[in-house]
Amino acid sequence: MTAFRSVEWLGDRLRLLDQRLLPEQVEYLDLTDHRSVAEAIANMTVRGAPVIGVSAAYGLVLAADADTNMDGPALRKRLEIAADELQQARPTAVNLRWALRRVLERVHALPDDSATTIREAVLLEANRIYREDGEVNRAIGAFGAALIPDHANIVHHCNTGALGTVEHGTALGVIHSAHAQNKQVHVYVDETRPRLQGARLTVWELTQLGVPHTLIVDSAAAHIMRTTGIDLCLVGCDRVAANGDVANKIGTYQLALAAHAHGVPFYVAAPLSTLDRQTASGDMIEIEERAAAEVTTIGDTLITLPGAAVRNPAFDITPAKYVTAFITEKGIVYPPFAAGLAKLFN
Amino acid sequence: MTAFRSVEWLGDRLRLLDQRLLPEQVEYLDLTDHRSVAEAIANMTVRGAPVIGVSAAYGLVLAADADTNMDGPALRKRLEIAADELQQARPTAVNLRWALRRVLERVHALPDDSATTIREAVLLEANRIYREDGEVNRAIGAFGAALIPDHANIVHHCNTGALGTVEHGTALGVIHSAHAQNKQVHVYVDETRPRLQGARLTVWELTQLGVPHTLIVDSAAAHIMRTTGIDLCLVGCDRVAANGDVANKIGTYQLALAAHAHGVPFYVAAPLSTLDRQTASGDMIEIEERAAAEVTTIGDTLITLPGAAVRNPAFDITPAKYVTAFITEKGIVYPPFAAGLAKLFN
Repeated sequence: MTAFRSVEWLGDRLRLLDQRLLPEQVEYLDLTDHRSVAEAIANMTVRGAPVIGVSAAYGLVLAADADTNMDGPALRKRLEIAADELQQARPTAVNLRWALRRVLERVHALPDDSATTIREAVLLEANRIYREDGEVNRAIGAFGAALIPDHANIVHHCNTGALGTVEHGTALGVIHSAHAQNKQVHVYVDETRPRLQGARLTVWELTQLGVPHTLIVDSAAAHIMRTTGIDLCLVGCDRVAANGDVANKIGTYQLALAAHAHGVPFYVAAPLSTLDRQTASGDMIEIEERAAAEVTTIGDTLITLPGAAVRNPAFDITPAKYVTAFITEKGIVYPPFAAGLAKLFN
Repeated sequence: MTAFRSVEWLGDRLRLLDQRLLPEQVEYLDLTDHRSVAEAIANMTVRGAPVIGVSAAYGLVLAADADTNMDGPALRKRLEIAADELQQARPTAVNLRWALRRVLERVHALPDDSATTIREAVLLEANRIYREDGEVNRAIGAFGAALIPDHANIVHHCNTGALGTVEHGTALGVIHSAHAQNKQVHVYVDETRPRLQGARLTVWELTQLGVPHTLIVDSAAAHIMRTTGIDLCLVGCDRVAANGDVANKIGTYQLALAAHAHGVPFYVAAPLSTLDRQTASGDMIEIEERAAAEVTTIGDTLITLPGAAVRNPAFDITPAKYVTAFITEKGIVYPPFAAGLAKLFN
């Protein structure tokens, strides 16, 4: 159990660990309206597909509770509008949409139209999404740990730990579980430019867990594979298309190509909430482009000429053929992925 | 012609542009003894294989001039010792060794043993290395420009421009020459962690040359290849083994793997001074590991936990099979490289 909570519902407000300040400062932000939640998602106070979904669900709770004089029909409408606003905070991760839809569908399915019933249902569903996330991640950890050999050297990209989820984590949750089984594991932590989630967040979490690790620049992974030897790569995902193409943090694809060239297994930890059956392939996934300043400025340091032209895609698509297997809460899925992923929903 | 000089001999001292301060400040350091030159090479005041070689040669000039009371045999001995000290400044780039040997061999070949003759020979050879570097780079630029299609999108890693050479540059020299021929080119500039030579130096040089460019994080190159499309990659090198394996800035290998996966030609600009016929393959090349602080600190910002374990290999090896061709001052060399590279020395 980690000593922090990425997200917590306090009855009348949503408390988020401000991940932009880690590892230097551990500070929490309390949010009392859904627009602040949307902003916190957009500016990456909170990041990581699962915890974004949970935060958005509580954003709807805040929207529902904002005006207790509203009648049922007005409240339903308000929730639809709030969901749209939250949805637009980040386009690539599917959990955001998934969590918002779960809450709205529950509201749609209500037999009566009283505002109180709606408010109760919204809170109930948000709590359920919150609670399930921990259970899902422990299941992913248990299934995934079986894939980790003893004395494994693992490359991990971005951050997929307890910070990116409600607890335990997805890909880092697998490492957590393997470590808890007393397997010796060592993690090469990709620093994950531009926002340095690996250097800032994953190093911090692995230190707390007592898992040995070594920080590297993203472009060194192939060199480490060629010289030191790597047993597997483990990453999370923001969305998986029906054919198994993976949208994840920028650099995932380049790491997958390096793994492929070295015959290193490339595993993607994917809760069912990241599986997007409505998107046929990765080419249909919108890739968020973020501000140039994320690349050009680190802390107070400008690292290039002022006004330099920049492209800053936040994610990339790893074609399914470079994925060895998906680790889900229902088990491991090997190719062919279209069939294997579809079967999870039966 | 660029408005700066990376290296200049001023008759009694060596003037180096302090590349650690770019692009914010353009400042020069004047060095008057060979140990300061060794230190400037080790701490990367000056970086880039060709200009390191030139600087080391002038380091020997400073060593030869330090004590005008020395007799010939004592001076020969002093030069050997100084060459050893300069050689140890950086282990991977071969130009350093190549330039030092050229000067020492010239001294060995002298018919008489007067200190004055030795001093004159050392200066003459250093000046020759300096002058040749500009000629070599213009030849590389001319041969390489023929490989660049009009409207080319190019990925470039690290910095290989006039800053890393006496003038014109190697891989960036090719881009310079193509641009001078009025070809439309656009360069995706890998920022090149950890020291950010791309963000700091290449963006600065391309801006001065008026060549359109876009800065990206290193791990985004594969995504750009898959989505936007890239016509070729162009990199320099610090050493080429006899079989064509390439030692170059960390991240070169990972970029080469991405290029290979996309069928993108991968060209290495390689002056003959970087070809190391005595090293059979890349596995025999020592890879310099540099300080953790280069990864953990950017400007004044610590980007991870204090004391985080780090690996910081400064270079990697790109196996010859991922290189499309070498661009040398004697022409383009295609596979099989062992024969093609050897023929350059006939």
